[in-house]
Amino acid sequence: MSLLVVGSVAYDTVETPFGKCDKMLGGSASHFSISASFFTNVSIVGVVGGDFTEQEVFDSRSIGTNDLERIADGKTFRWGGRYEYDLNVAHTLFTDLNVFADFQPKLSDESKRSRLLFLGNIQPDLQRGVREQMPDAELVALDTMNLWIEHTRDSLVRTIKGVDVVIINDAEARQLTGIPNLIKAARELLSWGPKALIIKRGEYGAALFTHESYFAIPAYPLESVFDPTGAGDTFAGGFMGYLASQEKLDESAMRRAMIFGSVMASFNVEEFGTDRVRRLTHAEINDRFRAFKRMTHFDEIPFEVK
Amino acid sequence: MSLLVVGSVAYDTVETPFGKCDKMLGGSASHFSISASFFTNVSIVGVVGGDFTEQEVFDSRSIGTNDLERIADGKTFRWGGRYEYDLNVAHTLFTDLNVFADFQPKLSDESKRSRLLFLGNIQPDLQRGVREQMPDAELVALDTMNLWIEHTRDSLVRTIKGVDVVIINDAEARQLTGIPNLIKAARELLSWGPKALIIKRGEYGAALFTHESYFAIPAYPLESVFDPTGAGDTFAGGFMGYLASQEKLDESAMRRAMIFGSVMASFNVEEFGTDRVRRLTHAEINDRFRAFKRMTHFDEIPFEVK
Repeated sequence: MSLLVVGSVAYDTVETPFGKCDKMLGGSASHFSISASFFTNVSIVGVVGGDFTEQEVFDSRSIGTNDLERIADGKTFRWGGRYEYDLNVAHTLFTDLNVFADFQPKLSDESKRSRLLFLGNIQPDLQRGVREQMPDAELVALDTMNLWIEHTRDSLVRTIKGVDVVIINDAEARQLTGIPNLIKAARELLSWGPKALIIKRGEYGAALFTHESYFAIPAYPLESVFDPTGAGDTFAGGFMGYLASQEKLDESAMRRAMIFGSVMASFNVEEFGTDRVRRLTHAEINDRFRAFKRMTHFDEIPFEVK
Repeated sequence: MSLLVVGSVAYDTVETPFGKCDKMLGGSASHFSISASFFTNVSIVGVVGGDFTEQEVFDSRSIGTNDLERIADGKTFRWGGRYEYDLNVAHTLFTDLNVFADFQPKLSDESKRSRLLFLGNIQPDLQRGVREQMPDAELVALDTMNLWIEHTRDSLVRTIKGVDVVIINDAEARQLTGIPNLIKAARELLSWGPKALIIKRGEYGAALFTHESYFAIPAYPLESVFDPTGAGDTFAGGFMGYLASQEKLDESAMRRAMIFGSVMASFNVEEFGTDRVRRLTHAEINDRFRAFKRMTHFDEIPFEVK
């Protein structure tokens, strides 16, 4: 496989001002892999219970599930959340970890040979354990969340030292470094070891920091956001999926990958769960990539102002 | 003259966590004209009191002040503000309108022949009065603020109907239209008549909406912001000044003007008041324009994803 993701596979219950949807496929590995599957061969390391009936979604997108453990007498991780009109903030209604509580990622030999690895938002010791099983991976990226920053910061920092790309949002970057200015926070985080840092800014877009460069893009302009759940993992799936499709993982590829990530995330929020992304066509994806080019392009100055 | 601005000329007292500066040159017309002066001939319509001693600043930048009225026995407009560590929010400490309280813009015949007009943030009846004295202006832009949206909304909407470009921040766009989603709010505002709308998003950059297109740019990444006072007017000065230097005011010119506006605003916040912008060189301005190109450019997809 070209790309491996370790993370949660869940059943989500989501309430928004526009409706409610119960027990739909969710979790970081689900959103990530469905998004990445449009670009590359992707495979999941995760765990589900005997109640899991969404296998056909993964099959329909040719997503590898040999390392998706099934615990017949257990229940799949469930998460419930509610969004108010301000769709930037998710209010968690319940979290039933179920089989995910004792999740120990197990990688088959085939999985360990994946070229790229994405460590979804799980406990940082587990992330590090997986990373160490794949010392030859060409590029490893990591996501995290406020919970791990608060309770397992030291472990998280150690894990970050061992990856190439960190993908977090602006609040997490500030919280993790204790630095309010985002540019300074980014420099601090990069000094820990990663080659690149992606900061997601929701409706304001995203930025890619490397040791030598800065790249920033707006979000796709949406007149309505229906369900933001999974937007971050869908972004990461587009980003890593596109990179896995490329021979050279240079800055130019990373920048295009940022656009594809944003494209996928912009589709994700248009409907509940993974519904919109699952139905996508490559023509739709490419069209939206070109829309990003149109909305960010400006001409060089024909002659210098003097 | 190529460009005329009507607005305030003031003495500002600003406190930030990094220091305090008393009685420095401020006001929308000052920030605007100093910024615009790097691109074009610009002239001010405004009023000052007998205590005004900053004329040499305008002279040193060749800014026209024939229509800057002097009321010998009056005092110049004074504003005092404080910023906490969150430099996005200004806390007004005092506002002494002084001679500005009875400001009635008076345009000389030469001023009325200006090609472009910027209506700084003053009462919308006054803005409309000036606009109506220049029916042949090629492009008219307007700024406003929450005070006028709250207390003189009907007049403001009438004024907006008569201009080409509205330049406001995201909170103002939402407040003015009553629409939380920025893209919908922009569409509503454009339906009132303007050809273009620029929404300033502070540290997140700015966006240009027209009836046919959308263009968004990040802010220049700054590790420290010293004094944000006047950043919006400095942006507008760079935007309008660059446009005034161009023969064709088409979308391509507007996009480059957005970059020059952002460039000038990014310098403005580096020091107190107008200090940094006054000292700029064209080489510094052009360098930062090229930095914007580097930080937003991405390659087309070499072949389509399929």
